[in-house]
This record gives sequence, structure tokens and C-alpha cells, in this order.
Amino acid sequence: MKNPQGCASMQAFAISGIPAVKQGCDIGRLILDAIAPMDLALLPSDVFVIAQKIVSKAEGRTRQAGAIEAGPQARDIAARSGKNAAKVQAILDESSEILRVVDAPPDGIVIARHKAGWVCANAGIDESNLGDELAADTLLLLPEDPDASARGIAETIADATGVRPGVIISDTFGRPWRRGLLNVAIGVDGVVPIVDWVGKKDAYGRRLNVSQQALADEIAAASGLLMAKDAATPVILFRGIEWDRSASARAVDYVRHPNEDLFK
Amino acid sequence: MKNPQGCASMQAFAISGIPAVKQGCDIGRLILDAIAPMDLALLPSDVFVIAQKIVSKAEGRTRQAGAIEAGPQARDIAARSGKNAAKVQAILDESSEILRVVDAPPDGIVIARHKAGWVCANAGIDESNLGDELAADTLLLLPEDPDASARGIAETIADATGVRPGVIISDTFGRPWRRGLLNVAIGVDGVVPIVDWVGKKDAYGRRLNVSQQALADEIAAASGLLMAKDAATPVILFRGIEWDRSASARAVDYVRHPNEDLFK
Repeated sequence: MKNPQGCASMQAFAISGIPAVKQGCDIGRLILDAIAPMDLALLPSDVFVIAQKIVSKAEGRTRQAGAIEAGPQARDIAARSGKNAAKVQAILDESSEILRVVDAPPDGIVIARHKAGWVCANAGIDESNLGDELAADTLLLLPEDPDASARGIAETIADATGVRPGVIISDTFGRPWRRGLLNVAIGVDGVVPIVDWVGKKDAYGRRLNVSQQALADEIAAASGLLMAKDAATPVILFRGIEWDRSASARAVDYVRHPNEDLFK
Repeated sequence: MKNPQGCASMQAFAISGIPAVKQGCDIGRLILDAIAPMDLALLPSDVFVIAQKIVSKAEGRTRQAGAIEAGPQARDIAARSGKNAAKVQAILDESSEILRVVDAPPDGIVIARHKAGWVCANAGIDESNLGDELAADTLLLLPEDPDASARGIAETIADATGVRPGVIISDTFGRPWRRGLLNVAIGVDGVVPIVDWVGKKDAYGRRLNVSQQALADEIAAASGLLMAKDAATPVILFRGIEWDRSASARAVDYVRHPNEDLFK
């Protein structure tokens, strides 16, 4: 299929061959090994989206629920939500604020503001289906600093190939007024989170009116189209996207300032 | 670039050649005309994402602010938000509930629940940069029934080609706790809004753990990557996505029931 007028196009590939990730794995190195058999010369405009779960595993961001002693607040929230009190304590330890507590059998939901600023269910802690290599009561936390994780992966790839692609670390968040979950960017290297096109012109001189485009979140959301149906493809490669590069791009720029939060 | 292990991939194309859309235009016919010069045999798994703005224009979903008389509630909200009272009246007329009123100079923001259920800024009304063919005080409303709009476009394409692709009508919404705007699906034909993979297995027998994947929203979000930088590409074609088809798919299924709304 060709687009004869030269209009924009993009492609995305699920990278196969990423093995089960254990603590201490080098995600950048695993990606390099996985793309080695592909007939692929990396471009600076390529973007890798990486599932948070493998980054957290590589960084050893785990706790064992059985080893956590729940305090009074955790026990109170557990009673209201139906959640395990040790898991609630882990959520509290990861959070700066609890926004809502929901009794949602068979498990409850705690909407929390993660210490990094993200508002999400259960402070982003995964607690199920983490793979055979982790004990059954393992809780998987968000990376300590996902922007730094993304930077490290980009540097590993750049050192090995001479090309520094964009890197996005994505997690799956719910939305307050829409059912269903969407992948969002919680860490970036290179890719600017938000682009404002208002007043700029397109290639044909037409005025653009796209305000505050959530660019990295768009790429993260698109990655879900290829991640969902194959448990072994936690890395997606995008080619053909035009994106603004900044050495200071940080996904935490998505966090609204507290005085912009209309729905606390 | 090939992906030798046969892993999933997808492509997206910005469809060029869509002209300025006026009331009465047949969007399905415009798409057929635009793809005619492309070397393209449509597949049933293809998905078109169409910007709400051209659908609303084709359906004549406009009001002139100058012809609207603001009532007491609109005048009160206008005073609090800095918005024009006639525009606020139009928002009220489109909404079932006002959630928040924000004074955000140079213009205010009214977070409203649209009559269809969507919670979004200004009830989804566009009021700027609508093109030379509309008067300066034109307000562009959401389509009356975007799922029906999507169905009509899919039927036009199916009647002409014998192939019924998926169709998504997208609009750009903000998020309460994340800065930046993302395209979401407000109308669908064929494409199931939410897919639950929990407990299903992938092609290799591995258990999947993706809950409530917001499939149509993922596709809509991805379309923003190609729509933002070219004012003349309000239609994006996706190829290679695997999606569940249902004749009863409706984007309004994204709307949370009022008793699920934690943040009213």
C-alpha cells in the first residue's frame, strides 16, 4: 500500500525475543539482543515503548506482602475496601495522598497519588500474574524514577549503536470518567511529553489548532495495540513518527500541579 | 525492516486529499474519493479514524453564538469563568450536568457531562479555527449520535467496496490528572470499545493479564500522532491491528455509569 501524495505514515513492531526479566537484567541490552536478528538499522526518530513491568522487575522493585506489617490507616482502608491490609500498607508507602477508597469485590481499589505525582489505582502496584520467577505474594512497585530508567536504556542503546532512539516507559492506567484502561507514559527519554501546535502552520501553510498534544501518551497508548495480545512482547518499536526531541524531556511533566487539580 | 519471528506489526497512514468539509458532505464518499488514487485494496481488518470536527461539519452541527440568548445560569457561569455567556448557554444546552467551572484566562473552562455521557471540557464544543467557510462566531457541536455517524460511514464504504472496515470517530479530550490532550473514541462501528484478556492465553499458551483494554481509545489516541501536524489529514487508516468486531459495538459503552463515578 502506498500513499502517493507523500502523506505521513508510521509503523509499529512488537519486538519478539525478550526473555523473562529478572532483577539485575539490563533492559537496553535485552532489546539490543532481541533486535539483532532483525534487518534493522535504528534511526534517531525510532521510539521504543517498554512495559513498566519489565523495568520494575529488572530494578528489583518488589516487596513481599507477607513481610509487611499494616499500620492503623492501612487496616482501616483494608476494612473499607476489602483489600488485603499488607497490600494497602504497600500502597500507602508508595503514595503521598489517598484520593478515594472503593469496595470493588473481589478486591478493592485505592485511588492514590503516587509519590512521583501520578494519580492511579493502587499506586501503580501490580500484584498478580507476575510470572513464575516471583513468589506468589510479590508486589511489583513502579520504578523509583522511570525517567531515569528510560534515560539509562536509551544510553545503553546509543552506546552500542551510535543512534539514540526515543524511549518511553508505559504503564496501564484507568480513567475517572471512561471505562477501560489505557497505556500512558510514566518515563521518557528524548520524547517531549506535550507539544503545542496552536498558531503553528503545517507543511502547506495551513494554521494548526492542536493544543497541548500529549505526544508521549499517544505513543504509549498505541503500544497497547500490540502488547495486549502477546505476553512476550513488552517492547514495541515505532518508526515514522515525527516527534520533538529534548534532552530534558520528563514524563513527570504530565503531572498537573496541585492547584490545577479540579477533582481532588 | 522485517520482524523475522513473525511478531505483530501495524501501520497507519494519513489519508491526504480530504477537502474542506461543508454541511451535507458525505464523509464516506469523501474517503472513497481520497483513497481511490492509492494502491489500496481495503481489508475488513482496516480501521479508519475520523476527526469529529469534519463529521460535525458534514452534519451541520453548528450554532451561531450571536443568535443565542443566555439564561440566568449561563450568565452566572460566564461571570465566574470569564467565558462568553452565549457560549456557556450552548454548553448548557448540550449538557446534562455541570461538574466544574474554571476561570482560566483568556477563556474559561466548563467541565460538563455531555447529554451522551461524555465528561469533557465545554461539552465538546469547538469555537475556534473552524475554517474560512464558517462564520467567526460559529460553535461546532458534537455529532448528535457519533455511533450512528460511524455506522453510516462504514455502510457507505461497504456498499461501494464490498469490504466493511472498522470506523472510529475521535475527539480530543483533556484528562483530570494529566496535562495534555488525547484523542478518544466518541463513535465506533465494528470496533469493540473494551476487550478483556484476563485469563485468555496468547498464541504461545502464555496467560494474559490485560484487563479492560480500551481498544478503540488506543486506536483513536494513535491517530493523533498523524493528525496533529497536518491540518488537512482528518482521516487516518490503520492496517494490521487485530481487533474484535461486533455489530453492536458502541463508543457510549465507555461512559461510566453514574454509580461508578468516583469524582463527581
